[in-house]
Amino acid sequence: MGKLLVIGTVAFDAIETPFGKTDKILGGAATFIGLAASFYNVRPALVSVVGGDFPSKYLKLFRDRNIDISGLEVVEGGKTFFWSGRYEHDLNKRDTLATELNVLSDFRPRVPEAFRNADVVMLGNLHPEIQMQVLDQLEAKPKLTVLDTMNYWMEHTWDSLLDVISRVDVIAINDEEARQLSGEYSLVRAAAKISQMGPAYVLIKKGENGALLFHEDRIFFAPALPLEEVFDPTGAGDTFAGGFTGYLAESQNISFENLKNAVIHGANLASFAVERFGTERLLNLNSAEIASRLEQFRELTQFDFEVQ
Amino acid sequence: MGKLLVIGTVAFDAIETPFGKTDKILGGAATFIGLAASFYNVRPALVSVVGGDFPSKYLKLFRDRNIDISGLEVVEGGKTFFWSGRYEHDLNKRDTLATELNVLSDFRPRVPEAFRNADVVMLGNLHPEIQMQVLDQLEAKPKLTVLDTMNYWMEHTWDSLLDVISRVDVIAINDEEARQLSGEYSLVRAAAKISQMGPAYVLIKKGENGALLFHEDRIFFAPALPLEEVFDPTGAGDTFAGGFTGYLAESQNISFENLKNAVIHGANLASFAVERFGTERLLNLNSAEIASRLEQFRELTQFDFEVQ
Repeated sequence: MGKLLVIGTVAFDAIETPFGKTDKILGGAATFIGLAASFYNVRPALVSVVGGDFPSKYLKLFRDRNIDISGLEVVEGGKTFFWSGRYEHDLNKRDTLATELNVLSDFRPRVPEAFRNADVVMLGNLHPEIQMQVLDQLEAKPKLTVLDTMNYWMEHTWDSLLDVISRVDVIAINDEEARQLSGEYSLVRAAAKISQMGPAYVLIKKGENGALLFHEDRIFFAPALPLEEVFDPTGAGDTFAGGFTGYLAESQNISFENLKNAVIHGANLASFAVERFGTERLLNLNSAEIASRLEQFRELTQFDFEVQ
Repeated sequence: MGKLLVIGTVAFDAIETPFGKTDKILGGAATFIGLAASFYNVRPALVSVVGGDFPSKYLKLFRDRNIDISGLEVVEGGKTFFWSGRYEHDLNKRDTLATELNVLSDFRPRVPEAFRNADVVMLGNLHPEIQMQVLDQLEAKPKLTVLDTMNYWMEHTWDSLLDVISRVDVIAINDEEARQLSGEYSLVRAAAKISQMGPAYVLIKKGENGALLFHEDRIFFAPALPLEEVFDPTGAGDTFAGGFTGYLAESQNISFENLKNAVIHGANLASFAVERFGTERLLNLNSAEIASRLEQFRELTQFDFEVQ
């Protein structure tokens, strides 16, 4: 069974949208990535840290889904990372209301022995030096390494960020981040510049406007599924990454054609994640729903005509 | 050969983009629609009006492309409709600098005898009462009637607009217009509401973010081709409409599956139109380029996996 090593935050989120607000609920990049990947025939492992305030029911939830949490450090006297945000009416913009790093401040990732030969490594958004510490602990080069990052690291840890970017196969960022990282407005040019920094594949996420995968002179596009209502976009990008890497860790076929499939699988799971607050929809999702929506993606995008 | 009846403006445009500016050049919705459709095996006819200042070389240009202009009225003492606009840096917003209706003020459309039984009718953006006068002159129900419109008519001629909307098969508008017309933010809900106004098909254009075709509970999405540089977006939507209707007038197959193909053909031609000012790229385009870029659309969107 393919091994998927996931690093990222495991957190409490408090979310406000036009549809309502939550108390502290389960969140964090590694959480969404791991839950999404758990729908594939893979063994995901989370490398992260939480405080003593992290409920054991959440730990059980990971274990029940066959997610290895031997690399999830619990700092008994500490508090779990907390993020709070509010979305504006159109859900495309959000304000961060609070960020409390807590135990994340002193986090030193430790990759479990059994995952130092992981097939696929997903570096969720974190300080680039922590991402690098994970790569440094690997015993073999993974079939695929995927990096997520954000504008904050471009502004504060540029050199470390470039270092880790140079060591990965895929970078997955949003359109504004791609523009900031490259200094290019055109996403085609941005992807070309970013690829020169190291990653053979550049995956640019555009939220409700889909995602673009660039590789050499080839481009693939996956739309977001048009939904009647997006309820809460929190975790959509990480769910996308979890579907993408979960599919690839299962199929273990690293070709552009198969990465196309992985992008569709990522977009598919993300379309569920936004239907409820936080992880709620992922926790109440079955494989028949997933398969049915993959067929919707096919209907949404596939056409058939002869070019004369 | 399929007959395509096109109504819309034939105009002079003066355009400013970050890349340069033009004097008065050939423009107008019917111009772009007719030129785009002329790449298909159809006979397009333009119903429009120009002034005595309209150069005969442009009339010749239409004739050379097998575009019927017997319905293009020339008002000898009048001046041709003029539009001037400036695009901001990201090309997604534009300011209208001047709109001089001129001969368009008194325009009474006259559909040539030979096109009163047209297979496909494309009602380009104009006063909805003028669009209706065209429908009233038809002798037979076309296989397909397509309507373009804009927010101005929603604000100033609401009742007439609803009348004409109730009489067409396809409405093609952009996302903001769809929201304004329906009062719904979600495009899925907007399309459902608009379809209740009459059109069985709702085509929502999102510029560089592609286009969505809605029909009953089915949705198809076509991306815009990612380009290194968009030079001038003027006419892209009309070129899209010309490719869409040209393809359908040629194939004469009005099914959802074939409308998908038509959407891709529209997006394909639009991707050329934006590469140069005004009609320049369409006037220097050959069928090999069109076919090659259709293959790019296939690579961009088609995937192949089994759903388990």
